[in-house]
Amino acid sequence: MIKRITHVGVAVRNMGISRELFSKLLGNNFPHTEKVEEQKATIAFYPIGEGSIELIESTESATGGSSIAKFIEKRGEGIHHICLEVDNIAQEIMRLKSLGFQFVDDKPSPGGDGCLVAFLHPKSTNGVLIELSQKIESQNAGKV
Amino acid sequence: MIKRITHVGVAVRNMGISRELFSKLLGNNFPHTEKVEEQKATIAFYPIGEGSIELIESTESATGGSSIAKFIEKRGEGIHHICLEVDNIAQEIMRLKSLGFQFVDDKPSPGGDGCLVAFLHPKSTNGVLIELSQKIESQNAGKV
Repeated sequence: MIKRITHVGVAVRNMGISRELFSKLLGNNFPHTEKVEEQKATIAFYPIGEGSIELIESTESATGGSSIAKFIEKRGEGIHHICLEVDNIAQEIMRLKSLGFQFVDDKPSPGGDGCLVAFLHPKSTNGVLIELSQKIESQNAGKV
Repeated sequence: MIKRITHVGVAVRNMGISRELFSKLLGNNFPHTEKVEEQKATIAFYPIGEGSIELIESTESATGGSSIAKFIEKRGEGIHHICLEVDNIAQEIMRLKSLGFQFVDDKPSPGGDGCLVAFLHPKSTNGVLIELSQKIESQNAGKV
């Protein structure tokens, strides 16, 4: 089951500059910031209600394999993806695959903020990159 | 004050096709659908938690002045904007303008779902089109 919009991801070139800008915009000078090794990125979260806006800066170049750097090279800075929280990510992947949706990677992997995540391929979702996310604390994490 | 992510707007070419796709994806076959004359668009809302995903189909061509049609012509279908609910849109516009942010239109106008809305220019927000929205029912709508 899909529970909420966890965050909207924004690809940025320079975390320092963008953090200053979004801190002014959203009236919050202290976003939670962390490095996500698996995604070769530094991220900053601005909580808004039950969700957040996530800034994402690549720690590698486009030629180094970073999807964020590739995105910026192709389209410039801007909204990169929507993340939706689900209660059981493995079940949700199965449900969506049976309906014909394609995934970038079928197997959930560790994402930011202590979650398991998987990305739907935008080819099958109207050009929208959608991340599914499940809190790892849950007993059902990664199990069907 | 910014209260929540009201919705994430997705630009689509064909509402019929995209509504079928997102109904499967989000497990909801009956999104609220309406025409917004001021924005020359038909929209469909899929509630998710306290927010929603909004599909937007232009009712006019790019040459007819539709911003959604222009967006699709330039970038293809995909995520178009983030909408943030504020408690007083006129105050928020003043606050942000005093910090150097630019607006597409300084004056709030009627948007979908019974709201007053105003768009920040993506030039001043890292390429992110941000809509501010205030429920019209509020006694303070449009007043500083």
